[in-house]
Amino acid sequence: MTKLVFIRHGQSEWNLKNLFTGWVDVDLSEKGVEEAKEAGHKIKEAGLQFDQAYTSVLTRAIKTLHYALEESGQLWIPETKTWRLNERHYGALQGKNKAKAAEKYGDEQVHIWRRSYDVLPPLLSADDEGSAAQDRRYADLDPRAIPGGENLKVTLERVIPFWEDEIAPKLLDGKNVIIAAHGNSLRALTKYIEGISDADIMGVEMATGQPVVYDLDEKLNIVNKTKL
Amino acid sequence: MTKLVFIRHGQSEWNLKNLFTGWVDVDLSEKGVEEAKEAGHKIKEAGLQFDQAYTSVLTRAIKTLHYALEESGQLWIPETKTWRLNERHYGALQGKNKAKAAEKYGDEQVHIWRRSYDVLPPLLSADDEGSAAQDRRYADLDPRAIPGGENLKVTLERVIPFWEDEIAPKLLDGKNVIIAAHGNSLRALTKYIEGISDADIMGVEMATGQPVVYDLDEKLNIVNKTKL
Repeated sequence: MTKLVFIRHGQSEWNLKNLFTGWVDVDLSEKGVEEAKEAGHKIKEAGLQFDQAYTSVLTRAIKTLHYALEESGQLWIPETKTWRLNERHYGALQGKNKAKAAEKYGDEQVHIWRRSYDVLPPLLSADDEGSAAQDRRYADLDPRAIPGGENLKVTLERVIPFWEDEIAPKLLDGKNVIIAAHGNSLRALTKYIEGISDADIMGVEMATGQPVVYDLDEKLNIVNKTKL
Repeated sequence: MTKLVFIRHGQSEWNLKNLFTGWVDVDLSEKGVEEAKEAGHKIKEAGLQFDQAYTSVLTRAIKTLHYALEESGQLWIPETKTWRLNERHYGALQGKNKAKAAEKYGDEQVHIWRRSYDVLPPLLSADDEGSAAQDRRYADLDPRAIPGGENLKVTLERVIPFWEDEIAPKLLDGKNVIIAAHGNSLRALTKYIEGISDADIMGVEMATGQPVVYDLDEKLNIVNKTKL
């Protein structure tokens, strides 16, 4: 039996400001830091010991992981960062105020962009300001793989190859794994491992800073799921 | 031309208390945290951009790396932790007060343990309290490789294989590398890349939290060395 833990990063500065964030690299708010430390405290109380950590290449998830590991006395475990665990890319909406976007495009359209499984947001092109194509952290990535905007379906399609190639083999090898990531990359993983339908997944909420603990059997079936 | 940066971790809680530390996993002091952030600030000012980070499996070095990377806006770079970059193992002296050790064993003996290249400290055995053999972070290591105590010579002999296998190939590939580690693991690397003699190396001091920047040519010869 192996343990798999998900943590969605704590509150970010842009959650506070009600802005679409996506791949923009905003920091944790003070409350977000506290949430991450509290997650670490709960992990320690629960006696969870990890062999491997995964996170995105975005500061708010990385810092959440570091606080959680430090508080639970295991900052020394191996850590792998990947763009595949990044938040859903919100396209041209990134950096826009959610209320103002609703004024401009209408409530219903914004609701569709936020809550539909397979509708893409307005896209950002590679030479638009703020495109990931101009960010050094994606310099090793085929430019064709850099998204201009994603829905959950596309997010899932780039998360799952990493699950298959990196995370699942560790779990199958009996290693306990922690993944600190984002609302939508974790939603994608949740959909995949719990077999949730396209229609139902958008209603699944991941609480910030709350560790979700799965016990998995040797075939990676879920035996138990608890929230700390 | 590639950049190689060494940072010795900031002041630890046991530096403050004048205790032998070695592989004991003590935290940074408040001053140590400030030193690490200041290092990151200097790295940012100098415009240094890294492709890969290396550190030990000891919290004080890992946190120094994280603060330095965060302050310089590159917490997202890949990071590899290894016991091979750990501080010199101080054997049975670990946790002992340096002044009390001098009273017990004599100033000269303690001086020899601290400053000779190839004299071992009193050894810790695998079932002694505090042995790394009882620490989960070394569980994947052949028990024969877990030291009972090291001098700089032995430290160098376990650091250099990691340099040869992991760090040097990255540099030869044109990647800029940062290494956050410890007084003696960095002294070992310094000895190796600068070709310093056994007699002279013990006089080389690494300042805590001060980035040392090497420019290396395509054969990894040192073209320039600066301290930030």
